[in-house]
Amino acid sequence: MTQEMVFSESISYIQRKIIDILDNVSQEEIDKIKKLFFSSDRIFVYGAGRSGLVAKAFAIRLVHLGFQTFVIGETITAPVQKGDLVIIVSGSGETIPAVMTAEIAHDLGAYVVSITAKKDSEIAKYADVTLFISATCDEVDRRKYAPLGTLFEASVWILLDGLTADLLAGKNESEEIMRSRHATLEQ
Amino acid sequence: MTQEMVFSESISYIQRKIIDILDNVSQEEIDKIKKLFFSSDRIFVYGAGRSGLVAKAFAIRLVHLGFQTFVIGETITAPVQKGDLVIIVSGSGETIPAVMTAEIAHDLGAYVVSITAKKDSEIAKYADVTLFISATCDEVDRRKYAPLGTLFEASVWILLDGLTADLLAGKNESEEIMRSRHATLEQ
Amino acid sequence: MTQEMVFSESISYIQRKIIDILDNVSQEEIDKIKKLFFSSDRIFVYGAGRSGLVAKAFAIRLVHLGFQTFVIGETITAPVQKGDLVIIVSGSGETIPAVMTAEIAHDLGAYVVSITAKKDSEIAKYADVTLFISATCDEVDRRKYAPLGTLFEASVWILLDGLTADLLAGKNESEEIMRSRHATLEQ
Amino acid sequence: MTQEMVFSESISYIQRKIIDILDNVSQEEIDKIKKLFFSSDRIFVYGAGRSGLVAKAFAIRLVHLGFQTFVIGETITAPVQKGDLVIIVSGSGETIPAVMTAEIAHDLGAYVVSITAKKDSEIAKYADVTLFISATCDEVDRRKYAPLGTLFEASVWILLDGLTADLLAGKNESEEIMRSRHATLEQ
Repeated sequence: MTQEMVFSESISYIQRKIIDILDNVSQEEIDKIKKLFFSSDRIFVYGAGRSGLVAKAFAIRLVHLGFQTFVIGETITAPVQKGDLVIIVSGSGETIPAVMTAEIAHDLGAYVVSITAKKDSEIAKYADVTLFISATCDEVDRRKYAPLGTLFEASVWILLDGLTADLLAGKNESEEIMRSRHATLEQ
Repeated sequence: MTQEMVFSESISYIQRKIIDILDNVSQEEIDKIKKLFFSSDRIFVYGAGRSGLVAKAFAIRLVHLGFQTFVIGETITAPVQKGDLVIIVSGSGETIPAVMTAEIAHDLGAYVVSITAKKDSEIAKYADVTLFISATCDEVDRRKYAPLGTLFEASVWILLDGLTADLLAGKNESEEIMRSRHATLEQ
Repeated sequence: MTQEMVFSESISYIQRKIIDILDNVSQEEIDKIKKLFFSSDRIFVYGAGRSGLVAKAFAIRLVHLGFQTFVIGETITAPVQKGDLVIIVSGSGETIPAVMTAEIAHDLGAYVVSITAKKDSEIAKYADVTLFISATCDEVDRRKYAPLGTLFEASVWILLDGLTADLLAGKNESEEIMRSRHATLEQ
Repeated sequence: MTQEMVFSESISYIQRKIIDILDNVSQEEIDKIKKLFFSSDRIFVYGAGRSGLVAKAFAIRLVHLGFQTFVIGETITAPVQKGDLVIIVSGSGETIPAVMTAEIAHDLGAYVVSITAKKDSEIAKYADVTLFISATCDEVDRRKYAPLGTLFEASVWILLDGLTADLLAGKNESEEIMRSRHATLEQ
């Protein structure tokens, strides 16, 4: 295969894998998470590195949907309290800041949702719901076409876009209402 | 003078200049700004570079004081509306994003406070109140002890800390209440 | 259709649309962009809101690939110079900060790549290469399953992951070398 | 005292305290830190909340001074290595992310400088140099005029501005060279 084809092979590979991965996400868990959104006071998201960017992209949509939302680690945040919902995106499910965030939130009486690629990870101990994001891969192909956490991050991005559509339907709102909550002074 | 003394000369120089600069800030303008805080729905802050960091540091205190606060350009923000207060920190008062932010906020019916080092700057046209932060300096000393926007940024930091104390008194609240609003999951 | 199915309908819809959108991206343009990476001194990325998060996610991979990379608007950046490459992600291709960034970078002699959903947008005037990201959609479905810029953002995320794999092959490097450049103190 | 005077009382109080605090910083420790700058490969800064903003403001100046600088936790960072310098600003000197950052950096063979308000804090164990930032205060005045970490943060801001001037002299460079390294596309 010539090098010129790596781009198209990669986007095709990543998309096939996202389909496999998201097919394994249980509708039951999604329903549980959706219920937590409607029974929680405020939503907090947390993630590091590229997982953090995925979490922030979701947070922007939650603001558009009218949920009071905070990104842990940004300038404007608030103390997590009992009755809040904390969503943690962590591929490994084992990094200390992610696990600490889960543990502290759990101890404060908040609901915790973890989204992770590692079954039985440390973070799952403190989570009310854990979404397990994973697929069996040929490692040679994966390293070439989707190095490092690429499959996890891209899958979670799409998953959270799907959850956004679901929450929009659940609120009986429209794109137009979401747009009205969009920042007017975005830099 | 030996090089070893530059550190102590610089901190002494910067502090003397901050005193001069803040002596020139009119109590009347501070009172106007304080009134805007108590008559506005929500507070937005904006700044670029080091001025943006000064604005964010103030935003954190506003959250501690219980004001609903947003940092323009961060993940979680909201559309500026009539009745909001927008505070813009811009040394030059002329950079396009800062001026645009002021103009759009003004046109939307928000109150605009600009904090700038340049008299009659473009940004002042759109501001309800402008705090003018400046001092006469010997340029040789300034370049050596406080290069670039150092005096502006340090003075505004202290000024906004003073405004924080003033707002705290205005709300009849205590450090303890502020602490209770402090993020528990700060990373 | 019951509301419970919106999640799975949405992820399926988004994935079908991404396939359509990325099928329309020309290999020729990708090859041009790839050449710019290997002939540029440094890489700068820019985007606002969710597009900015997509741009940042790509920037992290560029660091892993060993390119000297900056995110415009973050604390640590540098002056754009002749010979640098500036990549701008902007759905509308018309927002003032995005267009200004393109114009200034172009005038400084940098190469500019714009990624946009709007043909003949203002930003394209200043771009050496423009990737046009778009698909014909039934608007009723799109609003329900992929509100606001969802399709653009998700497609660009996958596209840039594909470009990452392509650049990795172009550098003859491995996932292992990328991992060695990964932050050790990520918070 | 009328409420109207709290602003001017506060800025006067903060400035008096900064003078006291910085008088206690030993020139010997500053000299040690300065030497570390000139013998280190790259500089990393870390801080959370308002301390993090102070650290970032310093990082911007370090870029202007031509040091290769990274902010731990931002998009573009790098793995800390032996021979790097890690500067950690933490009022308490005890928060887990700050202590972990110090410990990991120390174990990797990097130099660690901690700036803290707490003597014998956990973080000092891993630091090559610790700057102790503190003053005896009447607590009634402090709570009213400088609540929470205000005195620490403002003092460290000025201290690092002084260190900037010192490093500028140490490099025999000018404000003009610093300006040439200033971002041209700051948002």
